[in-house]
Amino acid sequence: MSGGLENPIELLLVEDNPGDARLTQDAFEQLSMETTIHVATDGTDALEFLSTRHDHETESVPDLILLDLNLPRMGGLEFLEAIRDDSSFASLPVLVVTSSTATEDILESYELAANAYLIKPTDPDEYAAMVDAIAAFWFRHAALPPITS
Amino acid sequence: MSGGLENPIELLLVEDNPGDARLTQDAFEQLSMETTIHVATDGTDALEFLSTRHDHETESVPDLILLDLNLPRMGGLEFLEAIRDDSSFASLPVLVVTSSTATEDILESYELAANAYLIKPTDPDEYAAMVDAIAAFWFRHAALPPITS
Repeated sequence: MSGGLENPIELLLVEDNPGDARLTQDAFEQLSMETTIHVATDGTDALEFLSTRHDHETESVPDLILLDLNLPRMGGLEFLEAIRDDSSFASLPVLVVTSSTATEDILESYELAANAYLIKPTDPDEYAAMVDAIAAFWFRHAALPPITS
Repeated sequence: MSGGLENPIELLLVEDNPGDARLTQDAFEQLSMETTIHVATDGTDALEFLSTRHDHETESVPDLILLDLNLPRMGGLEFLEAIRDDSSFASLPVLVVTSSTATEDILESYELAANAYLIKPTDPDEYAAMVDAIAAFWFRHAALPPITS
């Protein structure tokens, strides 16, 4: 089992908007637990990051992925479909974090086995509250899958 | 989108242990939001509940399922596999809540697209903290899939 307060949590943030990436990083830095955030700016970069990690024996894949949907080159849903079809990454927890409130995006994300769908709050305090809820649920209470390379 | 504070949250608890079911119900009753919990004591009962709900136009399927793994008749993983293969329920959020800490149960649950895996705390205060984290993440922040019959 991964996660827990004793280990630094490693996240992969797939986000092309630098402002949103900064907001996410700031919110995670405010937590009492140590986190490391890697940023990929589209699905292709994110897939490359995962493959490189997986191919190096001393490095492991991240504990959790935060995935924007509207991305250049390879979009979020395409990325999600690609990792769910790859047995090395099929069970990796993915939280979609997007500004899209479209019913079809919510439904399609869950159908592609996103672990959860969150709508980006525009207010920074609300953003911090969302990150607190992510940390409490996923890092303090959930048992993350034991994925290592 | 389902969930949110404005609507009562409906849960299906699949749990054969009356003590654990009571503990769960008590913890959800302490929340500031209104929740309705239906209890099924095994996977067969749970499938029957979902099918009946789905077949009645005025009733909807629950917002979230809390699923124990070690159950008589149809076990939790078998139930999970069955609903993920049924397009009516494939995107329904399922949180595995079990006393099993076995790595293979954690991995298999995520592979079968459980949305999260939680290990039952034995301490009632810890149990209440887990339910608080579930409520904050899933009912206050996540957008649940729009599943209705």
